[in-house]
Amino acid sequence: MTEATADGYQQSRSESSTTNSKTTPGRPVAIVGAGQSTYGEFPELSITDLFADAYAQTTESVDRNFLPTEIDAAYVGNLGVGGVQLGISSALLTRAVGLQKIPTQRVENACASGGFALLDAVHAVASGRHDMVLAGGVEKMSDLSGDRTKYWLGVSGDTEYERLAGMTFAGVYALMAQRYISETDAEKDHLSRVAVKNHANGAKNDQAQFQREISLNKAMGAPEIAAPLGLFDACPMSDGAACALVVPAEDAHHYTDQPVYVIGSAGGSDYLALHDRDTITGIPAVQTAAARAFEQAGVSPDDVDHAEVHDCFTIAELLAYEDLGFASPGEGWKLIEEGTTELEGSFPVNTSGGLKAKGHPLGATGIGQTVEVFKQLRGDAGNRQVDASLSLSHNVGGSGGAASVFLYEVDR
Amino acid sequence: MTEATADGYQQSRSESSTTNSKTTPGRPVAIVGAGQSTYGEFPELSITDLFADAYAQTTESVDRNFLPTEIDAAYVGNLGVGGVQLGISSALLTRAVGLQKIPTQRVENACASGGFALLDAVHAVASGRHDMVLAGGVEKMSDLSGDRTKYWLGVSGDTEYERLAGMTFAGVYALMAQRYISETDAEKDHLSRVAVKNHANGAKNDQAQFQREISLNKAMGAPEIAAPLGLFDACPMSDGAACALVVPAEDAHHYTDQPVYVIGSAGGSDYLALHDRDTITGIPAVQTAAARAFEQAGVSPDDVDHAEVHDCFTIAELLAYEDLGFASPGEGWKLIEEGTTELEGSFPVNTSGGLKAKGHPLGATGIGQTVEVFKQLRGDAGNRQVDASLSLSHNVGGSGGAASVFLYEVDR
Repeated sequence: MTEATADGYQQSRSESSTTNSKTTPGRPVAIVGAGQSTYGEFPELSITDLFADAYAQTTESVDRNFLPTEIDAAYVGNLGVGGVQLGISSALLTRAVGLQKIPTQRVENACASGGFALLDAVHAVASGRHDMVLAGGVEKMSDLSGDRTKYWLGVSGDTEYERLAGMTFAGVYALMAQRYISETDAEKDHLSRVAVKNHANGAKNDQAQFQREISLNKAMGAPEIAAPLGLFDACPMSDGAACALVVPAEDAHHYTDQPVYVIGSAGGSDYLALHDRDTITGIPAVQTAAARAFEQAGVSPDDVDHAEVHDCFTIAELLAYEDLGFASPGEGWKLIEEGTTELEGSFPVNTSGGLKAKGHPLGATGIGQTVEVFKQLRGDAGNRQVDASLSLSHNVGGSGGAASVFLYEVDR
Repeated sequence: MTEATADGYQQSRSESSTTNSKTTPGRPVAIVGAGQSTYGEFPELSITDLFADAYAQTTESVDRNFLPTEIDAAYVGNLGVGGVQLGISSALLTRAVGLQKIPTQRVENACASGGFALLDAVHAVASGRHDMVLAGGVEKMSDLSGDRTKYWLGVSGDTEYERLAGMTFAGVYALMAQRYISETDAEKDHLSRVAVKNHANGAKNDQAQFQREISLNKAMGAPEIAAPLGLFDACPMSDGAACALVVPAEDAHHYTDQPVYVIGSAGGSDYLALHDRDTITGIPAVQTAAARAFEQAGVSPDDVDHAEVHDCFTIAELLAYEDLGFASPGEGWKLIEEGTTELEGSFPVNTSGGLKAKGHPLGATGIGQTVEVFKQLRGDAGNRQVDASLSLSHNVGGSGGAASVFLYEVDR
């Protein structure tokens, strides 16, 4: 941001809000801590272990003055696919990390559960009802195997028209990819290059599930899982957790000299079944959320320096470029072709490795993206550090039934 | 409230907030519409039918100027025990009633899912990020039978220490009841009289599952399910849905001359397993939530004219009297002994019939309580109408792992 102080920031927010006649902006909010467990396959760890790890790393990331007793609410994204009781898991998890008596609830929006838990935390603080809120997310997918996998992952797609007809998530995204390739000049190798890029980034992230590079040949030659998508076009099943601490922007400097301000936050929804949507070469729920987040922040896609997007399948990253306004419709593949979104490019995307290489523990994913943003914007991203002062995160659930978009900024 | 206008109300809230040095109150909010489906056993209806019914009754309850396109977010409480896909059901339900592209998410906190969905809606509006928010809840329990019932209801208790040892919810509340009877002068007939009272109220509610009175003899002589609780000490399994429309208090008079202001709203949590709690003759999560809600509203339990409390078992209503401050510890049973909480008493509780007689469709329950408050405070409760201008609702999940408390007021 251009203002040098939090006060200047507040002033600026408050002025920009007068352009909207109806919606009042509420208190500006900031993130002062964020951390995640390593993502991977950890059959020996419980869901509580994973959550406690992310919570510990989050509290350790707060520079000063952190008191756990100041946390006065918690929201936990969790789809409940394994390793946890289905009902009221949020109370169980927050008590396990010593958070006493505070209001807490589980947020479920399929693979966007984490993003919507963060939205809840933002609202809770912006409303003035809470002053330090924990947003968390967790999933332990390694408990699933065989028929249980099929059953549990199926619960997040459209049951009536897609799941009962045998359609998997790979199948749904394959339809989007086929249509996208047919309507644009994109080719299958642009998909594979998304995977190559994200693996290269994951290789620099010691919390990624896959910390290794892959070659374009390997990605292109992988077994097909749903044409045109091959094995390397799909993210893995993951265990993992992530957390972030949200406070009023005006209090943020009490905890750190480098708060990450949430300058835009919005959600959107749509039909679950592809055939009901306006388009399948874009995700309307994302377009809705992005428009609102950018309007709230008073910035445009051109202002964004870095983004973490929901690349559950490689095609999803290309669609995200377009839905979020980083490329014109039908031209998202050019960002890959030109290397724009590589770590060394002018607009790096998924520096963490993304869902593809960092991993995708469903309920944790949306908040894990925030963790990467927190590190990048504060200069803590080590050998994958990019030059960024304004970042975006983008979390999608149910192949586009729900989506959240956040915009974050730091004092320059 | 004593002020004659919404402006006066705002003024008053804003002044009272200055007594709290830290927490800012945010925008005051009000409810301008609320409605529910009839609760009962409806195997022929889908979960979407139930939700659409509640939504239609909610929109019809708005006196004027309602436009569905003004609804800009929705939160749906649902435990997912039957008739619905487990993941991302909120997007499915809101799209089914024609709500386009808005952010929506499922809120899950066991039997308190509805109350926490309403808390989310309150925060979303109070934060200034949204201007008309739908809070909804739904459950279709008649899809459960046999082993599925046992499995699904078990998901909301403590799995590790209680469920795997064979403990049911009736068993958990029976332990509380035994201890309560042993520590106080309460007797089993005080439990039964809660059931008799709530059935008498349900008999006057054409949306109740049980619209019939029962005698004290019948309640006392019912088969025991977990001593000292008998069949009539337990609420039924129910199908049903409920919704409420939340707007900024300053906009409320655009929609009605009789807005119901939410003057206090708070949640609390605790250990799920009884053995971990500070007490089992009270529910600490409720005490936490109530203290905060009363502080926020600047009123005391003496100011409350009417309450809807979470009587999943009759003992729970006696504990609620004490946890909410309507009776001293160990003396809740006296309110039943003296008839205070009957429809004709000085402080009527569960005028709707409560969970016991109106029914308990898990995710809907917390919002269904709001529907009764909305009717009572606006004088629309027909032959069960009481004299009230300040009401409370109280929703409990996981036998006390989570709880929400709301305080509502109308212009006198």
